[in-house]
Amino acid sequence: MYSFRNDYSEGAHPKVLQALTETNFEQTRGYGLDPRCKKAADLIRSLCAAPEADVHFLVGGTQANLVTIEALLKPYEAIIAAHTGHINVHETGAIEGTGRKVVAVPSPDGKLTPALVESVPELHGDEHQVKPAMVYVSNTTEVGTVYSRAELAALRQCCDKHGLLLFLDGARLGSAMACGDVTFPDLAALTDVFYIGGTKNGALFGEALVFPRPREDFRWYMKRRGAMLAKGRLLGVQFQALLEDGAFLDAARHANALALRLRDGVAALGYPLPVQSPSNQQFPVFPNEVAARLRDMGYEFETDHAVDAGHTCIRLVTSWATPEKAVEDFLRDLAACK
Amino acid sequence: MYSFRNDYSEGAHPKVLQALTETNFEQTRGYGLDPRCKKAADLIRSLCAAPEADVHFLVGGTQANLVTIEALLKPYEAIIAAHTGHINVHETGAIEGTGRKVVAVPSPDGKLTPALVESVPELHGDEHQVKPAMVYVSNTTEVGTVYSRAELAALRQCCDKHGLLLFLDGARLGSAMACGDVTFPDLAALTDVFYIGGTKNGALFGEALVFPRPREDFRWYMKRRGAMLAKGRLLGVQFQALLEDGAFLDAARHANALALRLRDGVAALGYPLPVQSPSNQQFPVFPNEVAARLRDMGYEFETDHAVDAGHTCIRLVTSWATPEKAVEDFLRDLAACK
Amino acid sequence: MYSFRNDYSEGAHPKVLQALTETNFEQTRGYGLDPRCKKAADLIRSLCAAPEADVHFLVGGTQANLVTIEALLKPYEAIIAAHTGHINVHETGAIEGTGRKVVAVPSPDGKLTPALVESVPELHGDEHQVKPAMVYVSNTTEVGTVYSRAELAALRQCCDKHGLLLFLDGARLGSAMACGDVTFPDLAALTDVFYIGGTKNGALFGEALVFPRPREDFRWYMKRRGAMLAKGRLLGVQFQALLEDGAFLDAARHANALALRLRDGVAALGYPLPVQSPSNQQFPVFPNEVAARLRDMGYEFETDHAVDAGHTCIRLVTSWATPEKAVEDFLRDLAACK
Amino acid sequence: MYSFRNDYSEGAHPKVLQALTETNFEQTRGYGLDPRCKKAADLIRSLCAAPEADVHFLVGGTQANLVTIEALLKPYEAIIAAHTGHINVHETGAIEGTGRKVVAVPSPDGKLTPALVESVPELHGDEHQVKPAMVYVSNTTEVGTVYSRAELAALRQCCDKHGLLLFLDGARLGSAMACGDVTFPDLAALTDVFYIGGTKNGALFGEALVFPRPREDFRWYMKRRGAMLAKGRLLGVQFQALLEDGAFLDAARHANALALRLRDGVAALGYPLPVQSPSNQQFPVFPNEVAARLRDMGYEFETDHAVDAGHTCIRLVTSWATPEKAVEDFLRDLAACK
Repeated sequence: MYSFRNDYSEGAHPKVLQALTETNFEQTRGYGLDPRCKKAADLIRSLCAAPEADVHFLVGGTQANLVTIEALLKPYEAIIAAHTGHINVHETGAIEGTGRKVVAVPSPDGKLTPALVESVPELHGDEHQVKPAMVYVSNTTEVGTVYSRAELAALRQCCDKHGLLLFLDGARLGSAMACGDVTFPDLAALTDVFYIGGTKNGALFGEALVFPRPREDFRWYMKRRGAMLAKGRLLGVQFQALLEDGAFLDAARHANALALRLRDGVAALGYPLPVQSPSNQQFPVFPNEVAARLRDMGYEFETDHAVDAGHTCIRLVTSWATPEKAVEDFLRDLAACK
Repeated sequence: MYSFRNDYSEGAHPKVLQALTETNFEQTRGYGLDPRCKKAADLIRSLCAAPEADVHFLVGGTQANLVTIEALLKPYEAIIAAHTGHINVHETGAIEGTGRKVVAVPSPDGKLTPALVESVPELHGDEHQVKPAMVYVSNTTEVGTVYSRAELAALRQCCDKHGLLLFLDGARLGSAMACGDVTFPDLAALTDVFYIGGTKNGALFGEALVFPRPREDFRWYMKRRGAMLAKGRLLGVQFQALLEDGAFLDAARHANALALRLRDGVAALGYPLPVQSPSNQQFPVFPNEVAARLRDMGYEFETDHAVDAGHTCIRLVTSWATPEKAVEDFLRDLAACK
Repeated sequence: MYSFRNDYSEGAHPKVLQALTETNFEQTRGYGLDPRCKKAADLIRSLCAAPEADVHFLVGGTQANLVTIEALLKPYEAIIAAHTGHINVHETGAIEGTGRKVVAVPSPDGKLTPALVESVPELHGDEHQVKPAMVYVSNTTEVGTVYSRAELAALRQCCDKHGLLLFLDGARLGSAMACGDVTFPDLAALTDVFYIGGTKNGALFGEALVFPRPREDFRWYMKRRGAMLAKGRLLGVQFQALLEDGAFLDAARHANALALRLRDGVAALGYPLPVQSPSNQQFPVFPNEVAARLRDMGYEFETDHAVDAGHTCIRLVTSWATPEKAVEDFLRDLAACK
Repeated sequence: MYSFRNDYSEGAHPKVLQALTETNFEQTRGYGLDPRCKKAADLIRSLCAAPEADVHFLVGGTQANLVTIEALLKPYEAIIAAHTGHINVHETGAIEGTGRKVVAVPSPDGKLTPALVESVPELHGDEHQVKPAMVYVSNTTEVGTVYSRAELAALRQCCDKHGLLLFLDGARLGSAMACGDVTFPDLAALTDVFYIGGTKNGALFGEALVFPRPREDFRWYMKRRGAMLAKGRLLGVQFQALLEDGAFLDAARHANALALRLRDGVAALGYPLPVQSPSNQQFPVFPNEVAARLRDMGYEFETDHAVDAGHTCIRLVTSWATPEKAVEDFLRDLAACK
């Protein structure tokens, strides 16, 4: 039986593990000041066509989010996020932990639009209110939807108009890029900062944070929040392995393909998937007893929410590691639940 | 011409000013450890029928809110507030400034109910989410509405059920008590902490914070946030003057009476007041040109929001200091705008 | 009997009280945006010969210290202070409460010098250490000593050399100016920010914070920490009363003169005063039984520290309000202790 | 040539790498709620003879320090540390970043004693001062010295007397245990919280934090600071590999032995080592030109401090990975510097 609970249920992509093994006895300086991190950062600058970019490697997403927001915003400035945004609901108030307010905007599909951003009253406030200074988006979003290049460009224009920074949380960027039209150079051109998520796409851990334009003192912010890994080269080694010959997008394509197979199989069995997700998270709605039977069979997945007294929306997540057979087994067993 | 902008546009109620003058050359210890503060605190304990209550005097409302929430909540705990709550929209993120998240709930009339509190998903969360630990209400609310004793009792019951503290911001408590059925002993019985607002009801400044049950270390929290007044006795002197023979409620009754006169006069002229406020804040809707003419005449007031392209909801606030003549003049001049 | 415990044991200087009384029924906008604050700020700009200065009025010293440091420093930057500095020992960690480290340097007389500043190892650190970005001094210091213009100029030069801001806490600035050679224009020329202390020199409360060069967003920082008084004009009124015709320095001269009378009288009786203080705080050393007898007689004062098993260093503070007779009585009674 | 710069210059101990490889395709829940973490925690409870202990796995030391201190102390409480303590000088103000003050005490050998703890004046303070609530020690210390069981027992007694918690930073606990008399059960019996450092003793990363007595809500604190690893099982796998059959202490013994060989060889060549370190960090003093020649030869190490114009104290660190040959080569090349 298989766990569709998350895309970080296994260890590392074989290429990553191999690279860690091969470099194990190299001696390097700590804290990211090593040749491996330099090489991975150069690679990212090249992929992004952003030769001036400042690249930092952090261990996880909550860490990346809180350190970035703390570094870029003054204490009284605020972040605009979709109500479902990871920083708003799934990080135990980590952003507020840095003293900043998250201004949450209800969004029907987990995405922000210029109109939603401009609906925030604080944009026109005074010193008795927080001052919005950043827009936070995730790609893919927390509900699996994906921003197109045009949508990001519209947000960029809106941000410029209102003096806002644009921060793209790329914890699942691989999945978004594998099914959308946004490229690394687009991200560098359209955002003020974004990250390339390793944890959910084949790394043991790691997020590569990219400031397309140079900045100076980010390492102080990282260290102060305990976000600078002693053996920093582990992050460089992993990103190099994932990015240097395309394993990153290949892994995401694999995950997406299996997710769409799940989606189509579930739909063919007559179960609705109200959210239109092209990515590696799918949200089917099952009668409660079907969800329970699947669990009894040993399948693991998260409950997203109760739809009504008799139905549950669950989340199925695929990854670089998901075997095709696990998907086929699941669909066969689901068919048997009828 | 008169300013209806706020209830803190003038100095102090004459009894307060007199008391400050009479005690000016008394020598006392600083920081609230003086006989005047002790006397005022004793008076409050007596009025509240709460002989064990811990009473502290702070200079202003934002300060009282942030120090109280910091003292009562762990860093990962959150406060539930109405979307219009003062801590959510008018304190520049002061609560987030202590590291805590405000979970805002849309409310039609600025009040919270058990159903609204129970609509917060984080009540059933885990360590990836903030943990709601306190309900924050204001009485009167930011839109002038008032909690009844029954409504507070229902919130208390809801809080007990879910392990939540109940904090009542009484910046305009005088106005609420002067038109509602809630008494000081009710407040002590139904809340975990509340304050008696002086600033908006006759004091130069000051909020008397009441913990009905004893607690130990609040003074450390106050000092650390710069919220302990050196000449603390100024706060004791003022609250004694306001509370010892009823000036506090008399002042609020005066303000409320003039506000209702404004309400009735405005309504009689055919202008709507959509919010049903029995207290010292009234929110009439005027055609834009009427609002502009009133301002041209010299009246001052805040704009609450634009209702549509042609209409504006304004806020009129009365206080202990508002002369009856100012209200009659306003209504006469408003009639002339037709 | 008299309390020499502090310089904030009484209410307000008569000129201040009179001004508050006379302006009591003026209506003004709140939060410092009123004509009285504007007038006081203009007066301060004029006194400082700093027409571009940004002036803000805060209620107390801890508040002024914490808001200023939070506004001027990045989170990883640190403040260098004398070990005895108020922010290091008497504010319950208020500066750390904003997330910043105070780097304390032992100082023999409560003052910092360029050599002491340059002894801080973190001046030559990296991202694993805090980055000193500000020097904090008090004038008078916590032990009554006073900076000369030449000493401040030397610190200014040192700060420029190392890229440090210079912040002067003027809680007792009146006393320092009344016995030293530093003028308001000197302060504006030599510091990046300083404040004129009202609380300890005749105001009910209040510190006038002066940024000699313009800055933009300080009001957001104030509001977020609850440091913006609703009836802000009270601060303007008080500083106008103190500064417009010299009451501020006159009051300080009175306090200093009585302190020197105490010093000389104590010394004439053979008791040592190890700290050379020319200002309104004196630190005599008495045999324990003498200190105890003075307390028995009803005199109040703080114990500074135990010198040895038989001797105590106490602190005697005079103010604008101290009557000459209180000093003479004290010296007479002290003589009787022999 | 070899780098003696640190004990985290290589990847992982072979046993650790093997365990990570073997478990790579296991599917587990995230965030430390997996069977591997459970097993490692059980093993630690057993080694500590502390069946009730609460065990958490964090990625690094700064993270472990800041989350632990934030969880255990109220905002106004302070930590007492040696002046050389890691939290005082090498974490970019991470503890202050949580709002707490570190009260630093000069220590001749990097260790705290009851007398040093009791020299802190704030132990006898009031609400105008921070309130010391915790003693922080490192074992080994930042200068390589080691606490004996008797010394820790004396600190425990001192802490109990003053109501202080005792926190032991065990970033280099392996080295300390391999050359001292403190056992895991001693640590559980004598401290309120300690950690077993993996990063500096063979893990890719990881610190195992042990609360000998049960506590409830630590995971909220971890998550809020971004200190909960998504693939948490990586931590469990590593600690199991290190602890289950003694690799942890074996690795430390190896490091210590080579450090003592360095110490003895350096001393035999006539160079002083003023700090008496029995552990894996050694601090020889060399003429500047000797230090420079060693660097020219390709040896890497940190400069600790300049002793005088002509001499430098450097730091040599050995680890589980240091080959005996590297030490012999170094000593031979050092001899050639004469």
